[in-house]
Amino acid sequence: MNAEVITIGDEILIGQTVDTNSAWIAEELHLRGIRLNRIITISDAPDEITQAVDESFSRVDLVLMTGGLGPTQDDVTKYTLAEYFNTELVMNESIRSEIESWFKSRGRPFLESNSKQAELPKDADILRNSRGTAQGMWFEKDGKVLISMPGVPYEMKGILRDGGFEKLEQFFKTTPIIHKTVLTQGIGESFLAKKISDWETSLRDDGYFLAYLPSPGLVRLRISGYAENGNAEKVEAEIAEYIAELERRVPEYVFGRGKETIAQVVGKLFQEKGKTLSAAESCTGGYIAHLITSIPGSSLHFMGSAVTYSNDAKQEILGVKKESIESDGAVSEDVVVQMAEGAQKKFQSDYAISTSGVAGPDGGSDEKPVGTIWVAIAGPKKTVAKKYNFGGSRSRNITISALTALNWLRNEFLSRELE
Amino acid sequence: MNAEVITIGDEILIGQTVDTNSAWIAEELHLRGIRLNRIITISDAPDEITQAVDESFSRVDLVLMTGGLGPTQDDVTKYTLAEYFNTELVMNESIRSEIESWFKSRGRPFLESNSKQAELPKDADILRNSRGTAQGMWFEKDGKVLISMPGVPYEMKGILRDGGFEKLEQFFKTTPIIHKTVLTQGIGESFLAKKISDWETSLRDDGYFLAYLPSPGLVRLRISGYAENGNAEKVEAEIAEYIAELERRVPEYVFGRGKETIAQVVGKLFQEKGKTLSAAESCTGGYIAHLITSIPGSSLHFMGSAVTYSNDAKQEILGVKKESIESDGAVSEDVVVQMAEGAQKKFQSDYAISTSGVAGPDGGSDEKPVGTIWVAIAGPKKTVAKKYNFGGSRSRNITISALTALNWLRNEFLSRELE
Repeated sequence: MNAEVITIGDEILIGQTVDTNSAWIAEELHLRGIRLNRIITISDAPDEITQAVDESFSRVDLVLMTGGLGPTQDDVTKYTLAEYFNTELVMNESIRSEIESWFKSRGRPFLESNSKQAELPKDADILRNSRGTAQGMWFEKDGKVLISMPGVPYEMKGILRDGGFEKLEQFFKTTPIIHKTVLTQGIGESFLAKKISDWETSLRDDGYFLAYLPSPGLVRLRISGYAENGNAEKVEAEIAEYIAELERRVPEYVFGRGKETIAQVVGKLFQEKGKTLSAAESCTGGYIAHLITSIPGSSLHFMGSAVTYSNDAKQEILGVKKESIESDGAVSEDVVVQMAEGAQKKFQSDYAISTSGVAGPDGGSDEKPVGTIWVAIAGPKKTVAKKYNFGGSRSRNITISALTALNWLRNEFLSRELE
Repeated sequence: MNAEVITIGDEILIGQTVDTNSAWIAEELHLRGIRLNRIITISDAPDEITQAVDESFSRVDLVLMTGGLGPTQDDVTKYTLAEYFNTELVMNESIRSEIESWFKSRGRPFLESNSKQAELPKDADILRNSRGTAQGMWFEKDGKVLISMPGVPYEMKGILRDGGFEKLEQFFKTTPIIHKTVLTQGIGESFLAKKISDWETSLRDDGYFLAYLPSPGLVRLRISGYAENGNAEKVEAEIAEYIAELERRVPEYVFGRGKETIAQVVGKLFQEKGKTLSAAESCTGGYIAHLITSIPGSSLHFMGSAVTYSNDAKQEILGVKKESIESDGAVSEDVVVQMAEGAQKKFQSDYAISTSGVAGPDGGSDEKPVGTIWVAIAGPKKTVAKKYNFGGSRSRNITISALTALNWLRNEFLSRELE
């Protein structure tokens, strides 16, 4: 089963907008066993649209189209498609009144151009858009399907999630694919692959697929399997067993699943045990606090962070000894330990985490090159510290330091060795 | 002058990677007066490549291709293009030895597959890649041009910047376009457009183009003009005058140019005057510190930030009075002023900036709905505070609060009214 995506948008062709819709659709289709043959971006012009659809239909049975459905005159997609599929536009009264109340509820005037959004092709199935005024449209011709959707990402996603994908799966009788994602931190893709190679071999022998999806400081593992002939439960159970096995094998790296973030996982652990956390940041410069406070409800366990960039601030706010900074430098075990213990005391938190390092590009030396980062964790009874060498760019060092610190905190918290 | 982009990459067709190369190329070509007709993503297969190139050449004179040039067997682009353009691959000894030293300097083994990267089409001009092993290739056929480049973004950009664009401009004798970007903060796109409508009309009457490029909390304005017949200097001067006029008209919004960030502009101002800065963050949760410390060299003026999420921390670290929190709540003028003054004192900085607000999704009330944010700035002699209502999602509120606070700081610093 093959498909193509056609994106309509002059703003993409002049580089004002990055097309993220296509990547989202591509991944969702891939996970449903539908292969994308091409992704094509064209401008919003009748000839371009007609020609691109003709070409795509000569290659595949399914076309997903986004964009070109705005209420203004330069959006011609709906009119072009109605003509292409040999149908006419008629006013859909129920959608018209829905759009009208949508505007009313937002206290905005309902204009003639808005009402035009309810004029829809007679022979198309409407895929309702509850998040905006441009509806999704499902056209059929000789067993081939074209779905036209607005280009606003969350409206497009809503249309497909609210029924579009289901209709697709039924129409093309696709084999459903079950997929689970496991999140790891603290180990590179190739080292991880080596460590779990027999697990991976066994997984593949059982007919499952594995994808490594790396980003700075993290590697996501996606396991997929076909759920044919009503064996969905069996597939779910087998994948769950593989994931459990992975967690037993490398628990220090596996921190979560799906769309979780490490700050979220740490937050959940702390809130479950009723413990509190604070931070003292030098090289991460507030990024750890930002990751934590981006999560709604984090104020329940997170007391705050002392971003002490200057050495004076390390002394004044965290009580780091002047002599320690003078003898060992700010990037040292002694200082990072005092920072963590200082934050723990000042914020009156059960745990505290601290960082001090050379983020770069300047400030490196032979002894402490760019990428040298000290991390410490102060627990109720003990404080531990560790030195890392990341050696990347400034932004990479900040990101990786923060994620590494949070994952180490997760491991220490779970081990209860600092209590 | 029209062109098309062909992106080769199975990882894009399954949604593992978002194609950002095309947007970058699209913008760069647009700014050189070259119009993109289509952007096409295909898989790395000989038939697909040949067919796509044929189709593109039937529509346009220039094709830019990225991807498919890796050293492994599944990368077939180079071989397919050599055949398409009727030429053969020959070992390029000078590039071979360059690649060999590239590997040596990184202490990595030089394999047979790496040496294959120096086998290049005899009849193609080589666009040198100094950042990796896959070279750029310039093919010509009947006055049409195809440029093939690796898919790694910074290698691809390097190839075009280091000579690719220049060769293109000379070959197609394009009219150079001069473009300048002005950065604004604190005003929405439509309000800004209304405020400067006569300026915009005059700009357009003089033959220049204007694009509004909004992102959360910011609006970039891009002014472009054709530099024909050696009038580049005149165009530069006229655009500079329009920008100066804009800065005179709305200096409170215009904070920078080009790729500058607001944290960078503020940092430059503080470093020029030898002044220091600190922060006290509640709702922005460390994001202001993160924006500032992402800039290399920020430790010269930035002392740190007290991310005081809990009320106890506001009292303990910043010296906020318990009574103020109890009577007015943490999101109040009284508290945000004490936070700024507390940070100024603790960090011993000339200026301090503070935030306290309801980022959401929870914590809002009738009196202080989600999006209510107080910001204060403490200067050498005076402290000022302001209340904002952003009313967006948590991440939007955090972003917009931080940018708004930094731009207000810029204005107050320049006015010298707090000194």
